Formats: sequence, structure tokens, C-alpha cells
Amino acid sequence: MLIVMHHKASRKQIDAIIAAVRNMGLKAKPIPGSQRTAIGVLGNKGYIDDLNIRDLPGVKEVIHVTKPYKMVSRDFHPKGTVIKVAHVEIGAGKRPIVIAGPCAVESEHQIVKTALAVKRMGADLLRGGAFKPRTGPHTFQGLEREGLRLLSLAKKKSGLPIVTEVMTPENIALVEEHADVLQVGTRNMQNFDLLKELGRIRKPVLLKRGMSATIEEFLAAAEYICAEGNPNVILCERGIRTFETATRNSLDLSVIPLINELSHLPVIIDPSHATGKRSLVPPMSKAALVAGANGIMVEVHPEPDKALSDGPQSLTIEGFGKMMSEIKSLISFLGF
Amino acid sequence: MLIVMHHKASRKQIDAIIAAVRNMGLKAKPIPGSQRTAIGVLGNKGYIDDLNIRDLPGVKEVIHVTKPYKMVSRDFHPKGTVIKVAHVEIGAGKRPIVIAGPCAVESEHQIVKTALAVKRMGADLLRGGAFKPRTGPHTFQGLEREGLRLLSLAKKKSGLPIVTEVMTPENIALVEEHADVLQVGTRNMQNFDLLKELGRIRKPVLLKRGMSATIEEFLAAAEYICAEGNPNVILCERGIRTFETATRNSLDLSVIPLINELSHLPVIIDPSHATGKRSLVPPMSKAALVAGANGIMVEVHPEPDKALSDGPQSLTIEGFGKMMSEIKSLISFLGF
Amino acid sequence: MLIVMHHKASRKQIDAIIAAVRNMGLKAKPIPGSQRTAIGVLGNKGYIDDLNIRDLPGVKEVIHVTKPYKMVSRDFHPKGTVIKVAHVEIGAGKRPIVIAGPCAVESEHQIVKTALAVKRMGADLLRGGAFKPRTGPHTFQGLEREGLRLLSLAKKKSGLPIVTEVMTPENIALVEEHADVLQVGTRNMQNFDLLKELGRIRKPVLLKRGMSATIEEFLAAAEYICAEGNPNVILCERGIRTFETATRNSLDLSVIPLINELSHLPVIIDPSHATGKRSLVPPMSKAALVAGANGIMVEVHPEPDKALSDGPQSLTIEGFGKMMSEIKSLISFLGF
Amino acid sequence: MLIVMHHKASRKQIDAIIAAVRNMGLKAKPIPGSQRTAIGVLGNKGYIDDLNIRDLPGVKEVIHVTKPYKMVSRDFHPKGTVIKVAHVEIGAGKRPIVIAGPCAVESEHQIVKTALAVKRMGADLLRGGAFKPRTGPHTFQGLEREGLRLLSLAKKKSGLPIVTEVMTPENIALVEEHADVLQVGTRNMQNFDLLKELGRIRKPVLLKRGMSATIEEFLAAAEYICAEGNPNVILCERGIRTFETATRNSLDLSVIPLINELSHLPVIIDPSHATGKRSLVPPMSKAALVAGANGIMVEVHPEPDKALSDGPQSLTIEGFGKMMSEIKSLISFLGF
Repeated sequence: MLIVMHHKASRKQIDAIIAAVRNMGLKAKPIPGSQRTAIGVLGNKGYIDDLNIRDLPGVKEVIHVTKPYKMVSRDFHPKGTVIKVAHVEIGAGKRPIVIAGPCAVESEHQIVKTALAVKRMGADLLRGGAFKPRTGPHTFQGLEREGLRLLSLAKKKSGLPIVTEVMTPENIALVEEHADVLQVGTRNMQNFDLLKELGRIRKPVLLKRGMSATIEEFLAAAEYICAEGNPNVILCERGIRTFETATRNSLDLSVIPLINELSHLPVIIDPSHATGKRSLVPPMSKAALVAGANGIMVEVHPEPDKALSDGPQSLTIEGFGKMMSEIKSLISFLGF
Repeated sequence: MLIVMHHKASRKQIDAIIAAVRNMGLKAKPIPGSQRTAIGVLGNKGYIDDLNIRDLPGVKEVIHVTKPYKMVSRDFHPKGTVIKVAHVEIGAGKRPIVIAGPCAVESEHQIVKTALAVKRMGADLLRGGAFKPRTGPHTFQGLEREGLRLLSLAKKKSGLPIVTEVMTPENIALVEEHADVLQVGTRNMQNFDLLKELGRIRKPVLLKRGMSATIEEFLAAAEYICAEGNPNVILCERGIRTFETATRNSLDLSVIPLINELSHLPVIIDPSHATGKRSLVPPMSKAALVAGANGIMVEVHPEPDKALSDGPQSLTIEGFGKMMSEIKSLISFLGF
Repeated sequence: MLIVMHHKASRKQIDAIIAAVRNMGLKAKPIPGSQRTAIGVLGNKGYIDDLNIRDLPGVKEVIHVTKPYKMVSRDFHPKGTVIKVAHVEIGAGKRPIVIAGPCAVESEHQIVKTALAVKRMGADLLRGGAFKPRTGPHTFQGLEREGLRLLSLAKKKSGLPIVTEVMTPENIALVEEHADVLQVGTRNMQNFDLLKELGRIRKPVLLKRGMSATIEEFLAAAEYICAEGNPNVILCERGIRTFETATRNSLDLSVIPLINELSHLPVIIDPSHATGKRSLVPPMSKAALVAGANGIMVEVHPEPDKALSDGPQSLTIEGFGKMMSEIKSLISFLGF
Repeated sequence: MLIVMHHKASRKQIDAIIAAVRNMGLKAKPIPGSQRTAIGVLGNKGYIDDLNIRDLPGVKEVIHVTKPYKMVSRDFHPKGTVIKVAHVEIGAGKRPIVIAGPCAVESEHQIVKTALAVKRMGADLLRGGAFKPRTGPHTFQGLEREGLRLLSLAKKKSGLPIVTEVMTPENIALVEEHADVLQVGTRNMQNFDLLKELGRIRKPVLLKRGMSATIEEFLAAAEYICAEGNPNVILCERGIRTFETATRNSLDLSVIPLINELSHLPVIIDPSHATGKRSLVPPMSKAALVAGANGIMVEVHPEPDKALSDGPQSLTIEGFGKMMSEIKSLISFLGF
């Protein structure tokens, strides 16, 4: 349920509503807007009787929400959210950002070399996996703690903020020490306990779409994080699983304008995992930016053929440089 | 099987190979190239013994093809194909084209008004359905013969060449009288008898991807047309069927660079059927062009709310005009 | 629109309604039932005003149908349809049938040997393809006319009625000479001109589900045949296309009870194409029968390893015999 | 890598191999069989050189595994696994079991009433969710700790062992106090930390297939549990996500014989979540058993229309009773 207040509602009236909601055994979550405040009601099990609420002073409207999300909805936060990561701003109206780096951190040489190169070519953030979710248990699972240490080193040397994945609630504190953005992988998009715990920190979360998640489920997953108090969620489309086997996944860029209609959260695209083919990454990156993406995240590896994971979809450093010069020109054409 | 000739092979040597293939009870299809000729061998039931062929004079190599297509493959026609429709050129290196018009022809007023408007705003071809494939038999199936007549009228008044669908072999001659490009709809992508008959005409065919066809099946369907002698095939991606219900289909733009790697045929995108939502058409059109599409095909209707089919995905004339001014600027940025 | 008549409505009243519908420029299709007659109204483009109809004598109810089918719906034909093929009855309350034979007719020896063997083991009909739809044009496409002749020969020697595919309207007459049931393949499920032409004959049509057709589209395709006058449609589920690659398609047996709720037409299952794996055919055949299928259609080949198409999914004759003894016992357990 | 020992290999030889593997910095996992022991080698990042191993005494063969699983593979454990839950045996050659109960535990009355009823009608285990994964955060998420207490009460009153879901590693100990089988839900199939922790307990784990997981990924997820030391994994197919919307998911029963070929683990079917429709549950349950399932898990609710989750797919108690009488007769026909 969402309680929309009159634009002239006083602070006192808002507080009275919040108290009334809490008296009903529910949580009240004020959502301030530029024109008016809305109050999200959380914690109910099914439909709530709004009799006690709708006639209170200052209430304009009570909306019974049928979608599984509301705080991430653009209806209640018409202006696009901008998220700050160190000096980088991500979101509506800001220059689209580029996140680059290897799938997995493999060695000091590999991650530092990549970080310095992509920084020089114009990347805004460095990506690299220390904890790697893998289909089977007998495959390289990441350098873990040591990988995080190497990421911090690469950050120190390059100045690039770090995006890295966290796979389990108990590792959040550890990852948070090293990461500027915590990534939730596609397989964990509905790992609700992980999402809730990430809602209790303040650092931005990069939430990847589940490989067969609908847009509604994707936004509802983001809602889990926001509902616990962390509004800094960056959505990341990375291709969906379909019958097509010519590409690793099927990248549906129409989700960019679609999510922009439905939600105020920034959306970025990962063309590397989406296509699984190096040669498709530059055209899809450019297409994503023209379609309105707030950024892209691409895999870059100094020696893709020796990569411990996802080599065929990683750009070489030279390939990344070539793409970046095209992207800079495109971003300038787009008016940034 | 494909027989690749030396670049110095004489006409006589080529003819000798063709005769040898025919002696084996098979068809030989010479595929002239800028450097050398290749001879496609068709009609075999399974693997062919190449003993009688590979040692003949002028033969460079015999390739046993495992893919279900070869004439449409870029391997054997490295340069991109350019297709001429009246004065319009479609394909590699040419300015991307815009095909616009209503889903179905409904009246003289509707089609002529639309034709004149989209012509003025910069469209290159007019689309409009006279024969409409519909899920159930109790729905509007198009004006048929009368629809074709109205398309010819609209062409006369606007000067725009016509793209319209043909659904059955016996109507090809009739449709060909009025159309400059004959369209094969998504449901008929594997209507092999229709494809074969279209291979026997010379007018260009716009082949839409089946809603659950793989890229390999898509190219193999084009091969049916080419193998019968019509090399003028334009491929059209229109979204694939997936689990997602927020859009009508899932538009995978990565097929543009992918098909460009695999085939020499032009590729265009239909963002209207792909997304099913008017608001998603302009961003997806621009994304398609940046990804390398040779054109787009969009639905435009003077009164979308009254359209007999596919209203919600049709642009208004005003909306189309707005999109065209953005597209012109983008096309110019892309160097055309 | 469907006009439901009172159970006491006279023949004269029914004729008056039919005349009134025709006066509106529409087709009227009487659907006699055991209790009452319904009149389907076809040919309308969108909603019809029922003012001229609903108050005429004998009319019980006017139903505006929103589904793309009505004649195949169980709502209007509550009793299950039973279709006769020679002496074999297919449908509700009848012993489930077994259709067996090779994917493609390859030689007299092959088809006659198979026919005699499967007849001896208890098959009810013989299947075999003379016209084969194939992904690419360079693959064996069937023996065509000669294949039909061999099927007639096999029928003469074995006594088994024939099921074989027809791919194009112009071949219907030819195929009808040899076939007892005309099959529409999965790629042609929405080849509407083919469906309409098959609606103008009286021989039963076995309609395979499109590989990505919804149940609603499947029933609407059957409606095309019925709406033209041929009520003898057997629906055949053959697996749908999904992300899973371990099987050729994904066989969803829940469509059996689901279609039984929605439609009165018989439903059979093709576990050979659905799974693509010989070892999965017997368990899926038995599961289909327990779920209520009116029959199964399986591929049997005397030498599957040499089959020109679909060898890996064909049962050997011995394998078929083994399966049939289990199936006979199961059918008897099911009360037939 | 898997090291297969001679059937006469001594304990000492086996220990020497294990030591050699550990010297290489890897884990060795002996897999005793009735005829011979195999030693799984885990923890390697990519291919391992087997030079140091293959010539040691007692080694019959060294197999380099390319599949992402080996311990769950039937290749290395040819006999089907039977899992004991209290007095109930689940797996190859045993009578198929029936797990029944509500989607979510809602009240003492509801769970106890259901438990007593399904016990009386022949159920073997009681299911009921205390922790419920839900798409959005604003929906009923289960009674949690109180739900577990009520399950224990229902177990005490009915004698039925309990199956209930665990969503996060930190709750495993709590859930284990009350549950006889710990369920992993479809959204957590690739929550690898949860899987690993469940590998460290001994109670059986019921692992549901991810809604878009391939069979290979499904078995690899089970491998995560087994690789940590818990061999008691029951696989549960619950339908996959496809384009079809007529059912909640698409239930592919062909995975039953397919998994039986690939793995030694028991497989059960959940027709309630698969179809989402009450009327489809009995036919699909019976089809599953005939296809070789080791059991079924169905939702039963005393008042489905008032259920807090998944009402439309729950059987009434009467409906469950009717189905059970058919199932008992079928199980007896199947020879149990």
C-alpha cells in the first residue's frame, strides 16, 4: 500500500500517518519527492484495510499496489536517481559510465596491468571477480580474499573505484572493505537474504538480472534492497536465456527504455556476458548507449586466450582502446 | 558440398566441373566471386563422395559443408550484397533505409495519407499489409486484392516503392504486380514451398525471422530462396519469443553484427513487432542503426487507436516525424 | 460471436438466424449438439453489434468470444470428438491408438518391412514421410511422389491406414489419394492457406503443434481447419522449443489434460520428435497414455543407424515390440 | 579428474593415491563402490597433469572429466542411490513416495489438520514452508521460526517426517532441528554457499531444479552438495520457464528417464508448482510415476481459496484423497 500525501501536507501530518501505520503492526517508509511525500507501507501479509488511514488529514490518495515493487517505481520517484561512486556519478542526465576489467582477478600482474590500461583509455570503474560463482564445484572459484587484496592494490595504483561480486551475506563486510560497488550475480538475483543484507549497507549495489527473470521480478529484487534502506541500486541487464545458441545469452536492449519508464534506478548493460563473443561487444556497447543506458560493463583481459574464465568474450586491451575511441565520439554526439 | 575453383580457372574448366556434377545426378550452382568462382552442389541426400571431382583441372578445394546453408554464407561471398529497389539501395556501405507504414491497409484515406506523410519525413519505402496472417480465423485478415490496389495507388501518389506480405505460392504473381519487395512473415519463415517459389522470381524478398528460429535456421531459410535463383534476400529481425511478457517479443540486436559475420545479406530490424510498444520504437531504431543494421521497418498509422491491427505498437505520424529527425542526425554521425 | 439456441428452437428458427447473420454480410456456421444448436458467426472484423440477433425467436444467448477459437472449444461441444480412420476410432472414451513408422519413406524394403512388423506388434496406423520439411535446401527432402506410392503399397500389404505429411495446398489432392490422415508439420502450424485448404476436404488432419506455439495459438490453428468445414482434426503435441539442449525439444505432457479441458478434439503425443532420444520414447509414451492422451505416434526404423533422417530418435523394430507389450498391459490397466 | 582403482586395489594403495593427490595441492575424495573404489580429484583450476598418478600401483584408469559433475554421475556409481528418511526409503527399486502438504504453514489448525488427513490417505512425508521466498518484499514471507515449531507439532501428531525449505546458510542449523529433509528452492539452486553448507550436514537435501537450469547445471548443483560430503540429495523437477503462459511452468517429464541415465540420485516431481493448476496435478502425478519418478510432491490445503500462497494449484483434502486411491492402484500395477 502506498499513501500519497497532499503537496501541502505538513511534517506533523506525515508523522501522524507514520504512527498510524505502525499502530497497525506495519512498517512505514516515507519516500520524499520534490512535490510531495509518499509513504510506503511494508510488512503486510496480503491486502490491508485502509479505513484507518484514508481519512486522516493530509492524505491525498491511498494506492493498493499490485506490482511486487513500489519504492523502485518511477510512479513514486519521478526523477531519475543518480548514484555516486567516489567522484563518478551514475544515472539520469549524467555522462554514461564505462566499467572495465577481467572476469576474474588472477594475479597482481594481470589486474594492475589491466587497471592502468583501462584507466588510461577512459574507464570510470574497475571490475574483477574475487569470488566467482561457477556451474560446477570442480572449476576455478576465484582467488577470494587474495583477489580482494589485489583489487585494492589495483585501485591504489590506478585510482579506479572497484566493482566486485559478493555471493553470501557473511562476506558482505569483507567485500565492503575493498569494493566501492558490490555486485550481485545473475544466479543470486533472487537470493533474498543476500539482497536484504545488502539493503542494510550504504554502498551502491550493482544488481544483475537473473538469466530468466522478468523485468517485474528484476525490479522486485531491487525493491528488496531498497526496502531495507539502501536506495543505491544500479540495475544491470546481461542477456536472458532463450532457445538461441549462437550467442551465450540473448541481449534485449529494449529493457533500457522499458526500465526507464517503470523505474527511477540507473540501468547499465553487460554486453560481454550477454553475447559471449568478443566481436559483438563493441556494436552492442554503442547500441546500448544510444538506447539510453547509463553505462556499460565490459570484460577486458590482457591475454584473453589464457583467461581462467570467460576468455572468448573478453576484449584485448587494444580492442578496448579501439572501442573507447568510438564510444567517446558517440557519447559526445549524444550531448554529454 | 562446395567446389572452390582456382582464381585462374578457365570458363571451360568450370563448365567441365558443372557437367561432372550433373553426371552424378546432382545440381551445380556456380557462385561467381570477384576473385574466383565457387560451385555449390545441391540436391544430394547426405554426404557425397568427391573422388570424381577433386582431381579435375581448376579445382582448388572441395568443402563438405555441415551448415545448412552456403550460398548466403559470407565465406563464399566475402563482399556484402547490395540490393536495389527502384532507386533505393539496401546493404553494406549504403545509407541505412527506413521502411514505414501501417500494419494493415485499411482504406484509401489511411494508406495514402500515411504514404504522403512518411515520404515527406524521409521514409524510403512504404509498408502495408493486404494479406494478414492472424492467429485465429475470426479476425480481420486484410483487404486482400483491394488492399494491393490501394498500395499501388499510394505508390503512385507518393513515389514510394512498396513492401507487402505474400502468404501463399499461388498469390506470388498477384502480389508481384503491386509490390517492389515481397515480404515473408515470421510464421512462414519455414514454409519451404513459398520460399522456393520466391526463389524463382527476381524481385527482392524481405524474409522475417521465425519467432523461435535460430540464426542458423534463419540463414537456411534464406538459402532456400537463393538456391532457387533469387539472390535478392533482405533479412529482417523482429524479436524472438521468450519467457518475457513485458514486451511483445524480445529484440536481440546482437544478431546484426552476428549475421554480418556469417552472411553477406543485408539485415534490417522491425522494432514495432519486436517490442509491441510505441514508446520503445525510437530508442530501438536508433540502437539498431548504431549496431550496424542496413535499415529499419516501423509501423506508422494516422490514428493508431483505431487501427484494425497492432495499434499499440504503431507510431503516430507526428511521432514518426520526431523520430526521423533524430535518425537523420544519427545517420549523418555514422558517416552516411 | 456465438449464438446459442434454446434446446427447443425449431429448424425454422435456426434458419432465420442464419439468414439474419448473412444479411449482415457475415458467415453463419451451425454447430449441432446433442442438446442444442449453436451458430458460430465468422468473417467479422472486430466486434459485432448483436442488436439484430439477440431478440429473435429461439435465441438463448449471444456470446462474444474473445478467444481466437470457438468451434474447437469444449464450451460449445461438451462431448469429446471421436474421429474415424478406416476401422480405427480416435478420441474420447476409445482405446488409445498407436501410430508407428519411419520418419521418412526411403525404400520399398524399408517401409514394407516396417509396416508388417509394426502391424504384427499392434500398431493401428502407419506413419512415413514422403514430403519432408528440412531446415536447409541441401538435405534429403523425401521421395515425394514415389514415397506416396510406396506408402500405398505398404498399406496394401499390411492393412494399416496411412498418416503422411502435406506441405503445400497444391499437393493436398495428390497426398489425399494415398493418405488416410494428412499431417501438418510443426513448421506449418500457422501456414494458414494450407490449413484453410485442409478445411475443405473431409479426411482427418493431424495437426502438429508449432515448436513455439502457445496452446491458444494451437487451438486457433485447428479452428482454421474446422471453420472451413472439416471437423476431423487430431491435435499432436511434439515438444516445444526451450533453453534446454539435453533433449531435442521439451515435451510438456500437461497439455493433454489442459487441452482436454479447453477443447473436444483428440490429442496425441509424438515422443520421438519431442525427446530426440530413443531411450526416452517408451517412458514418455506410457506417461502420455496415463495422462489421458488419445494416442501416440512413434518413429520406428528397421535400421535406425542408417536412417536418412532422425535416426537417433527412432526405435528399432525390437525396441518397438518391447514397448508395445508394456503399452498393451498399461492400456488394459487403464480400462480399455 | 577421476581415478578408478582396480577392483583388487588394497586399502594401502588407495591411501597412497590419496596422499599423492594431496601432495599436488588438491583434494582427494574416495567414492567406494560395490566392485571398486574411485577417487575424485577436486579443487583443481583447469586440467591436471596425471603423470604422477596414472602409473601408481592399483590404478586402473584416469578419467579427465569434462562435465561439471562427477560424484553424482551414474558412470561412477552405477547402482541407484536409496535415501532413508526415518522409516521411508526413496530411490531406485523402492515404492515411489508421496510428499504432501500446504505451500506455506499458516496456522496450527491448518498444518495439523492437513498432516493428519494426508497421513490417513497414504502420504509418506509432510511438506510445508516456514521460510517462503517471494518475488517481492511486500508479500507474506512465511511464519519463519513459528512455522518450524508448528511443523514439529504436526510431525508429532501425525508421525510424518517433515520436508521444509531453508533459504540461507545461517538458518541451516535451526531448520535442521525441525526438518527431516531440507529443501532448496528453485531460486536458490545456484546459491552455491547454501549448497556447500548443506554438503556439511548429513540430513537429506531436496534440491529443486532452477526455473531455467539445464539438466547439466542441475546435476552440477547437486555435485556441490555431494562434493562437500553429503551424498543424500533428492532431485526435484518442478517445471521450467518457457514462453507458454497457459500453465505456470512447463513440466518436462522426460527429465526423469534422462536423469536416471545420467545420475544415480533419486528424482521426484512437483506437479503443483509445475502446472499451477489443481486439475492438472492428478494426471501429471500419475504420468510422473509411470515415467519412473521416485516420488511426487504435491500441495494440499484444507481451504485452498483462503491460502496465503499458491491456492489455485493446491488440491483440497478430498481431491488429494481421490488422487491417492488412483495412485495406489497405479503403484500396485507398476509392481510395488
